[in-house]
Amino acid sequence: MQSPKITIVEVGPRDGLQMESPVPTHIKVSLINQIARSGIRKIEATSFVHPKVIPQMRDASEVMSLINRVPGTCYVGLVPNLRGTQDAIKSRVDAVKVVICVTESSNQKNIKMSKAESIRQSEDIFKLADQSGVSAEAVASVAFGCPYEGNVTDAAVINLVESFVTIGYREISIADTIGVANPASVRHISSILRKQFPQAHFSLHFHNTRGLGLANVLAGMDVGIDQFDTSIGGLGGCPIVKGGTGNVATEDLVNMLDEMEVPCGVSLDSILEAARMAQNALDHPLSSYVLTSGSPASLYRSNLISGAENLPEQT
Amino acid sequence: MQSPKITIVEVGPRDGLQMESPVPTHIKVSLINQIARSGIRKIEATSFVHPKVIPQMRDASEVMSLINRVPGTCYVGLVPNLRGTQDAIKSRVDAVKVVICVTESSNQKNIKMSKAESIRQSEDIFKLADQSGVSAEAVASVAFGCPYEGNVTDAAVINLVESFVTIGYREISIADTIGVANPASVRHISSILRKQFPQAHFSLHFHNTRGLGLANVLAGMDVGIDQFDTSIGGLGGCPIVKGGTGNVATEDLVNMLDEMEVPCGVSLDSILEAARMAQNALDHPLSSYVLTSGSPASLYRSNLISGAENLPEQT
Repeated sequence: MQSPKITIVEVGPRDGLQMESPVPTHIKVSLINQIARSGIRKIEATSFVHPKVIPQMRDASEVMSLINRVPGTCYVGLVPNLRGTQDAIKSRVDAVKVVICVTESSNQKNIKMSKAESIRQSEDIFKLADQSGVSAEAVASVAFGCPYEGNVTDAAVINLVESFVTIGYREISIADTIGVANPASVRHISSILRKQFPQAHFSLHFHNTRGLGLANVLAGMDVGIDQFDTSIGGLGGCPIVKGGTGNVATEDLVNMLDEMEVPCGVSLDSILEAARMAQNALDHPLSSYVLTSGSPASLYRSNLISGAENLPEQT
Repeated sequence: MQSPKITIVEVGPRDGLQMESPVPTHIKVSLINQIARSGIRKIEATSFVHPKVIPQMRDASEVMSLINRVPGTCYVGLVPNLRGTQDAIKSRVDAVKVVICVTESSNQKNIKMSKAESIRQSEDIFKLADQSGVSAEAVASVAFGCPYEGNVTDAAVINLVESFVTIGYREISIADTIGVANPASVRHISSILRKQFPQAHFSLHFHNTRGLGLANVLAGMDVGIDQFDTSIGGLGGCPIVKGGTGNVATEDLVNMLDEMEVPCGVSLDSILEAARMAQNALDHPLSSYVLTSGSPASLYRSNLISGAENLPEQT
């Protein structure tokens, strides 16, 4: 297999499952193990939040202790504060991840503190992780639009990223939390960020709310972005806007990259198996295309034809 | 409004409705009128096929006689043969459209004749249309992959387009009938065709089977394609492969273009109204994103927030 040109960060076990009815721990563990088997090398495995806030993630430490650690794979835990960071480090995560919103209103409403407080806290988290030999990553949330403030300025995104970089963060995800990014805005802000912060490694995080997920990934690739957050089965949603849908489905992106002959190091069959496991566990259809249609290659292999004789003039 | 840079060809009333239970004539007429009101200037209105083959289109002439002709709008009728062409011309279509498959197997199975016969017939159709002062357009079907032969060669696509151009066709749609195109294959073949046939005006026609519809449109735009076939509500499907889904939804493309500030001359609100009318008439949910989510602007206007207080750390 060629060395990967695109890195896929699987966020389903955290960003996805926190939106669903609680899933038994052993199923989470199986899912994460299957994801690692598919070749994915960075997995947002769980979140070390208070169980009263997100009961779906109350077994964070247990999940981390039960998974099979695949060498070379980075298991990431989301952390809301220093207490969560301590728990995450005790649970031997490979990286902790903090989230700060680009806009003050979203940060106040969703993170329950001012941006300034969040940034100060993310500095303490970075130091604690660093002292413990654990990586620290950051997310700039609502970076393409805010449900409370509407459009987001370039300056607001740049300022938050600047804060992250100054603290020492190098892995930074730019998140379209409410699904309003478009290929033009993706190319625009990604180009600015890559130019202005060459020391940082960016990931783009898209929700497919308006069907633009893969078009936005393509736009990011066009300007040199090589890392994307996705979730098996398109798991997840957005609790802060009505009609918000899940992330881009991992298997849909793997299929796109396979078809474009861009190596990503992930086996489509294996990741489809993970998506099927999630669908079975959750017992409702997931918003993934390739889980339904299969890849073009599988279509040609099975040559599934029905009704072809009855409908001429098919365009 | 700026002059359109992208032309959207609405194919829902034909490619879409031929896949559904028959819709009453007056509803088809209302749909086509609403589509024209939205600003769309080319509409695949119906198909002049034998009613035994596609009963959904048995009212083709009636539909054409009842619609309000908006000046400057091209109402297109699909034609399978000379007889259909005569009917279409009698019904005062502005253009007839023929379909030929790029592969011999698909043409034999779906069009019921050899490619050579289809091409000969398309010459007769072109002449008859031309003598009657009616435009003639062509579709190269299964141009990105064939359910019977798998991958399609560049040469096969080029040869069919060459035949069309030699006969006199200038408006040519390149159709991904079974939803297997990807951004790389779209850029590749579109670049070749534009370079090799500068006298032709191409449209790309994508089914969203693997979620790549809008990414493929973006890829086409990148190499200068300025015309795309879409259907309201993502209507349509593909009868010749299992799991085949509808065309790219017109409103999803209009939203993408609006957000990218690329003028297409179509009112998103009006075309959403057409999609809603279709959804009500068909009484099942259509596969359109923006019909569910609304545009980002409408989200910001209504500021639809639910549950924001309960889920911190949302990426």
